[in-house]
Amino acid sequence: MKRVFAFLILLVAAPDSAALRHRPRFLGRFAGSGLRNIAGDSNHAAQYQTRYFRQRLDHFSFADEPSFNQRYLVGPVGRLWAPPAPIFFYCGNEGDIEWFSDNTGFVWEIAHRFSSLVIFAEHRYYGESMPFGSKEKAYKDAKSLAYLTTEQALADFVTLLTDFKRNMSAEDSPVILFGGSYGGSKILALQFAHAYINNVIGLFFKAKLLTSLTRLKYPHIAIGALASSAPILQFEDLVPPNSFYDIASNDFKRESLNCFNVIKKSWNVLEDRGKHRHGLIGLSRKFRLCKDLIDTEQLSNWLDSAYSYLAMVDYPYASNFLMPLPAHPIKEVCKKVDGYPDGADILDRIFAGASIYYNYTGTVDCFDLEDDPHGMSGWDWQACTEMVMPLSSSKDSSMFPPSSFDFSALADFCIQKYDVRPRPRWVTTEFGGHDISTVLKKFGSNIIFSNGLLDPWSGGGVLQNISHSIIALVTKLGAHHIDLRSSTKDDPRWLSDLRDAELKLIKSWLNEYYLEKKSSYCI
Amino acid sequence: MKRVFAFLILLVAAPDSAALRHRPRFLGRFAGSGLRNIAGDSNHAAQYQTRYFRQRLDHFSFADEPSFNQRYLVGPVGRLWAPPAPIFFYCGNEGDIEWFSDNTGFVWEIAHRFSSLVIFAEHRYYGESMPFGSKEKAYKDAKSLAYLTTEQALADFVTLLTDFKRNMSAEDSPVILFGGSYGGSKILALQFAHAYINNVIGLFFKAKLLTSLTRLKYPHIAIGALASSAPILQFEDLVPPNSFYDIASNDFKRESLNCFNVIKKSWNVLEDRGKHRHGLIGLSRKFRLCKDLIDTEQLSNWLDSAYSYLAMVDYPYASNFLMPLPAHPIKEVCKKVDGYPDGADILDRIFAGASIYYNYTGTVDCFDLEDDPHGMSGWDWQACTEMVMPLSSSKDSSMFPPSSFDFSALADFCIQKYDVRPRPRWVTTEFGGHDISTVLKKFGSNIIFSNGLLDPWSGGGVLQNISHSIIALVTKLGAHHIDLRSSTKDDPRWLSDLRDAELKLIKSWLNEYYLEKKSSYCI
Repeated sequence: MKRVFAFLILLVAAPDSAALRHRPRFLGRFAGSGLRNIAGDSNHAAQYQTRYFRQRLDHFSFADEPSFNQRYLVGPVGRLWAPPAPIFFYCGNEGDIEWFSDNTGFVWEIAHRFSSLVIFAEHRYYGESMPFGSKEKAYKDAKSLAYLTTEQALADFVTLLTDFKRNMSAEDSPVILFGGSYGGSKILALQFAHAYINNVIGLFFKAKLLTSLTRLKYPHIAIGALASSAPILQFEDLVPPNSFYDIASNDFKRESLNCFNVIKKSWNVLEDRGKHRHGLIGLSRKFRLCKDLIDTEQLSNWLDSAYSYLAMVDYPYASNFLMPLPAHPIKEVCKKVDGYPDGADILDRIFAGASIYYNYTGTVDCFDLEDDPHGMSGWDWQACTEMVMPLSSSKDSSMFPPSSFDFSALADFCIQKYDVRPRPRWVTTEFGGHDISTVLKKFGSNIIFSNGLLDPWSGGGVLQNISHSIIALVTKLGAHHIDLRSSTKDDPRWLSDLRDAELKLIKSWLNEYYLEKKSSYCI
Repeated sequence: MKRVFAFLILLVAAPDSAALRHRPRFLGRFAGSGLRNIAGDSNHAAQYQTRYFRQRLDHFSFADEPSFNQRYLVGPVGRLWAPPAPIFFYCGNEGDIEWFSDNTGFVWEIAHRFSSLVIFAEHRYYGESMPFGSKEKAYKDAKSLAYLTTEQALADFVTLLTDFKRNMSAEDSPVILFGGSYGGSKILALQFAHAYINNVIGLFFKAKLLTSLTRLKYPHIAIGALASSAPILQFEDLVPPNSFYDIASNDFKRESLNCFNVIKKSWNVLEDRGKHRHGLIGLSRKFRLCKDLIDTEQLSNWLDSAYSYLAMVDYPYASNFLMPLPAHPIKEVCKKVDGYPDGADILDRIFAGASIYYNYTGTVDCFDLEDDPHGMSGWDWQACTEMVMPLSSSKDSSMFPPSSFDFSALADFCIQKYDVRPRPRWVTTEFGGHDISTVLKKFGSNIIFSNGLLDPWSGGGVLQNISHSIIALVTKLGAHHIDLRSSTKDDPRWLSDLRDAELKLIKSWLNEYYLEKKSSYCI
């Protein structure tokens, strides 16, 4: 007979009290910037325990590789949880898991309503979950990075979760998977199909993918999944490659046509000014860079990233996910860009706009173009191996520098940087993607795909219901996985409605599960 | 626009005519034994091309491993095939693929009815599909064997199939997966869950598993699957461990209670006789062994294998799959066992019975206990790593020597033999198994699980319908994947009915597919 016992995290808290903590709102260079009172996402004040689970480096072979510790967070501390109450499992993204936990207050909030246990599992090769003992050793070369793949990360999640349930005699606790961006897609894989995303161009925000991947590749692991902003179709030829930059550009255009046009024109100006060494020095001064530019491409990429990220986090309230930002940050950027008198230097406009993103607090002395405050550098490897996601920027509808997707240039880059060749077709081979509607109709269930149309990644999302239990929730004014953030007093009505709809679906899955199990447990 | 063109295998036959062949009925030590006119399974006279596909050794990491050639058979040669006509894909088992093709005439037969292309894909590390260039090198040690895993084999199938369809502009051709035993379970994985089987005890016949695994782990790859005799539940505590030997024993008991009792008693007699060296020599003579026995265990295992295999291939007509055998071979064995006069040596009865299995042709001079005519030795590795399948033999209901499943003994054996530790829980973690009915109801579709109740593996099979499209077809008198064999004039009515039911279901899946695609293609 199985032992079923209450699991009171408070009582079993680790002796090391450092393991129990309220997270400061933001790590990295903005810590201590005095902005903690900006409405971020930590007002859920979730408490969790930090734990570690020993994982095989290679789940799919018996090569003699060393194991490593995967970090995971368990909470909420102080609440009584006993099987068969549910488990909410967050599939970690390409970054520090505490940072994602802090920015995923929704899961902590609704856990209270369902008396659920919450697990946030870190993705291998990110945060503290480093094979070979340190980031330096894990990131040494292609040999050490070889096991940074989506499939291995999914197997980590499944192994951790299966072992956890067994140890807790919680085999009967239903699991709901959560994830945003790349993490969201993993959910799908953990139920069967599709994958992460590509970030050669410096965009890292592709984590909800994992959630949907988990749900699909491992359907026995969970009874349902919420995959928020998961661009599971952003591979091969599944969607037009220009959707990302077109949507980001439209986010600016809808605030101000002038703003859109100024940005669109600025790239050539930048390039012209940077043709000579003294021009590069002038640009370095104008943009207050810590190190002088070697070419204008670095600066273009830095601006490109700012606009792309702004489109992702164009939330209707002040927030502090990637950067401390005001409400409607694109509107604020455009106010700066548009606010200069006629005849002003176009690059002054651009710098003022970008400063909203990179220096809203006004505390930055100089800008470091290579800064990686959230430890996302592993994404470059993933983009150079499995996560080959064609993105292009069209000449007319995009304000970004025109570009087409050039696989051979990517391959050259990856061979030079890592001595590895990308496998551009592996993701759709392993996870599917073509004809997804037919496949999911036959083979999936209980998945919410939520997307906001302001989010540039929504172009690669599932935007229409696939079946009665595979539901697309689309909001016109939503940005990147806003639904997963904590509720705030400034939430617009459409956002509350979206979360209510998600809650209702999750509740119905749980009720159906308990009913089928003839369990007396009640949600 | 996709090019759609006819694919006439006859016209594109390889210049090397050796690639085109009718297979002799049986390879190995019985080739040329004059038994080709025994009703085997080659009367379909299928012609195929032999081809090779370059595979990664490790699909799930970017470690710098050498690639290898996977063999596959494509046919039927001489038939016109053009997309979107179907593709029937057989997931190779733990053995030479030509041998399986020869014994899976059903697929070739129905391919004609549906104008389908047929692919038989070989499993890595078996037949000619050897990494590192040779069997010797591939089987050298744990390091070289490390990539002989189910997940890698599934990825081989999916990669081969995806590439094949792309090259043939056949993306719109629906795929039906086929497999028997271990191969059948792979189908399931190739749609999501469960796994192979364990063969520590010397039983190798677990290949239909792969078919169901394929259907489940890779639902985007195929629209349906026929998994014949796939013991997908023969793991961990999913079914009682004694089912295999109990069923095999009952197969003997139903023919003759005396036969059952003689065999049951024989183990102790064997052991007693073999206690001394001269006894072992006597046994070696009595059983006509090529090499003198070192202990009686070798001989017990050899007899155990014979009875187990006999239960699997207890077909109602003469056949030649594992060995050339008469119709109802267990009945024939028991006739021999029972036929001796009272007072005869019990071991004479046993030897006469076993000779039906090992020497029906009467051409064997001496018996080699370590013979591996079908190249199955890789299964030992699989049983020592992933395919940990608890089997026990109960004291009363089994005629085999009583035994319980002892994991630590298995682990010791595997460490000694391969320097590898089994992972007994990995299969259910990766593929599921617990609560399979709930999971498949939500997440599966279009699978036929066929099982015959004479087959000892049926105890680990799915014997009840799970949903309206996950169908269990059970025959009382069927043995191991008899439905996949060629039809013969001696087929009993229940067998024709079973195949008709399978055909009808496959036809309905294909029709539904073409209807959904609004294709004018007609089955």
